[in-house]
Amino acid sequence: MIEPFDAVDLIKAKRDGDTLSTPQLDWLVDAYTRGVVGDEQMAAWAMAVYLRGMESREIRDLTLAMIASGERMNYRGLSKPTVDKHSTGGVGDKITLPLAPLVAVFGVAVPQLSGRGLGHTGGTLDKLESIPGWRAALTNEEFHAQLESVGAVIAAAGSGLAPADRKLYALRDTTGTVECIPLIASSIMSKKIAEGTASLVLDVKFGSGAFLPDPEMGRRLAETMVQLGKDAGVATVALQTNMQTPLGHAIGNGNEVRESVEVLAGGGPADVVELTLALAREMLDLAGKPDADPAAALADGRAMDVWRRMIVAQDGDPDAPLPQAPESETVVAERAGVLVAQPALPYGIAAWRLGAGRARKEDPVSHSAGIDLHVKIGETVEQGQPLFTMRTEDPARFGRAREALDGAWTIADPGTPVQDGGPLVRDVIR
Amino acid sequence: MIEPFDAVDLIKAKRDGDTLSTPQLDWLVDAYTRGVVGDEQMAAWAMAVYLRGMESREIRDLTLAMIASGERMNYRGLSKPTVDKHSTGGVGDKITLPLAPLVAVFGVAVPQLSGRGLGHTGGTLDKLESIPGWRAALTNEEFHAQLESVGAVIAAAGSGLAPADRKLYALRDTTGTVECIPLIASSIMSKKIAEGTASLVLDVKFGSGAFLPDPEMGRRLAETMVQLGKDAGVATVALQTNMQTPLGHAIGNGNEVRESVEVLAGGGPADVVELTLALAREMLDLAGKPDADPAAALADGRAMDVWRRMIVAQDGDPDAPLPQAPESETVVAERAGVLVAQPALPYGIAAWRLGAGRARKEDPVSHSAGIDLHVKIGETVEQGQPLFTMRTEDPARFGRAREALDGAWTIADPGTPVQDGGPLVRDVIR
Repeated sequence: MIEPFDAVDLIKAKRDGDTLSTPQLDWLVDAYTRGVVGDEQMAAWAMAVYLRGMESREIRDLTLAMIASGERMNYRGLSKPTVDKHSTGGVGDKITLPLAPLVAVFGVAVPQLSGRGLGHTGGTLDKLESIPGWRAALTNEEFHAQLESVGAVIAAAGSGLAPADRKLYALRDTTGTVECIPLIASSIMSKKIAEGTASLVLDVKFGSGAFLPDPEMGRRLAETMVQLGKDAGVATVALQTNMQTPLGHAIGNGNEVRESVEVLAGGGPADVVELTLALAREMLDLAGKPDADPAAALADGRAMDVWRRMIVAQDGDPDAPLPQAPESETVVAERAGVLVAQPALPYGIAAWRLGAGRARKEDPVSHSAGIDLHVKIGETVEQGQPLFTMRTEDPARFGRAREALDGAWTIADPGTPVQDGGPLVRDVIR
Repeated sequence: MIEPFDAVDLIKAKRDGDTLSTPQLDWLVDAYTRGVVGDEQMAAWAMAVYLRGMESREIRDLTLAMIASGERMNYRGLSKPTVDKHSTGGVGDKITLPLAPLVAVFGVAVPQLSGRGLGHTGGTLDKLESIPGWRAALTNEEFHAQLESVGAVIAAAGSGLAPADRKLYALRDTTGTVECIPLIASSIMSKKIAEGTASLVLDVKFGSGAFLPDPEMGRRLAETMVQLGKDAGVATVALQTNMQTPLGHAIGNGNEVRESVEVLAGGGPADVVELTLALAREMLDLAGKPDADPAAALADGRAMDVWRRMIVAQDGDPDAPLPQAPESETVVAERAGVLVAQPALPYGIAAWRLGAGRARKEDPVSHSAGIDLHVKIGETVEQGQPLFTMRTEDPARFGRAREALDGAWTIADPGTPVQDGGPLVRDVIR
């Protein structure tokens, strides 16, 4: 075929601060998917985008072109409204696990296609795979049937959705072009729009453990994504939430499932419950259920019922014991006082190094490794009181985990300001 | 082996405007040569360099690292001083052909390792290969022997010189990162320093047909390269010269050899003679021959003698007729007046399209295609007088060549300012 554009011309245009037209972006994404535009060309273009930016229209075109690179699902024929949630990722962020069944309680379908973790942020599928027997890969038929019968499905995204994004995402990871709002926004939204959900709630995190720590950048990302959703006919709301300190007590895989089950049983850490309910309310609102009472559904066991059905439908055993690594080390408070700093990033890196995360996407993860916090930020401790416990299958890993945790907490006199990053939900962008 | 750095960290540092250290640049170039750093990573880094720049120390380190990626020649044992010349390339730029033998007349060795043309600028080897029998590939032994016996050698650069530059140069061509002073300067100088010459004269062009049309950018490139030469112990001088209009009358391959032979015979176009002598004087000065009279050596046939010996030493027949393409079209003046504009670029592109140049480095070139100018800028013409003749082996090529030449000349009333870009030699940077 005769190509209508030359990749070098488009790279130069972006390099020089020009905007690319809709046909140019359509072609670039399509030609990259076909392999006519090479990785080295797309890398140069991505760096030019990183340093020169993109206009709103270009971001929308890029998103639509990435959707058009693959199949776009739809839920015609489903008897329920659909709503999904996406988090930009954090440390201890297991919210999807209690949230999906909780929302499904109210007759809403949650079609969540999820991914695995990379680096210090965990992946929802990695966590669920701690459950003996549970499988992430579903056929389209299984996916639809479970949406209708159970309402909540968390499954692996197939390779047919936005393949251009998949290719570009892997490339950005190796070329220093990850932290770029136009590229992040189009990547997330192309997958979520291709997934076919009618509405979407975004959890855009800021603070130490977030992908974009700066709240202002997080806000711009949230606004960009909400606009992209609207433009594509997906009702979208973003919550900007605090990831300055880890969410809940558990950081890992199996231990995060355990904590999620506590929440579904009506207990669990206050921050996990608060964020689960805040996101559930937005999702239910978008799904046309403004009067639903999700707190009641956690308290009375209805959310737990849906959770169990969701796990069983994917061949998991909700009653099987969750794995716990045999090797552990507990760190204690070196003095009495108040825990005034507990930045999320070092705990995320340490859990990764203990085996809970992966450096390359083909690496395995340990389902039993991780960190359990015994004290959360703002709490009072005695000297010698356990602060947290690290667990791993391989004790040689403790050394580098401890290195990551150097300076990862501060105990100070009462009255010292607590560096918690402020309220859990900073803002809602509609 | 354990790699001391991570490519992504170095890409991010340059992306964020930081400088890379000497060990970092050494590693980056070495790891790229070994294939540990991928093309897509180097492309992202090159784009970051394009948009963020490099400090002098980084450019020097990059140059030295590219030299260290391969062999570095030397001429110990040679009885003559060495001096070479490099041109940034232009339209009708055949200066190396008369220049190398002219300088060699005075007992100076000119070890010129040259390349082939790409795009609208011709390559010295392509021109010389118009001569029946002449071969560009010499062994190291042949190269040294000819330097000692004839003094002038123009040959193909082997793959052992600065292989990192070769790889990076090809990458830049496809990723929109060509027109970048730190990358151009380090590319040219790494090859020239690795070639082992003791001194070097650079012809840095500006104007329509130049690689960098803007004179200020050309000046910065010249200054950067002169400094790089000095830092590496190679005495280096740059002439900034005018490429606003084509050099001489001939644009192509065989026809440029013919014009070069006219110069060596004591004739030829005034601009080609002027630039040949200006460069020869600088080269002879650097080689310790300030009193040499190159004009006399053109007039009395000594330069022609060396030319003939140089061609014969490389199996060429200096008396064989040069090829001339069978198909021609001549364009005539549409009115009487003065030729006040004759920008080089359209003529370069047209000659390329007629077959004299190549779009990809593996393409062949026609030795007989090209353009002969009958009128140069500033000259007076009558209506209907021939302006130039295009020649090609394939008459289907005339159409796109004529397209390139649309608006490529202006005939105006006497007294209209002539757009010739000023004097031929704009400045000398020492």
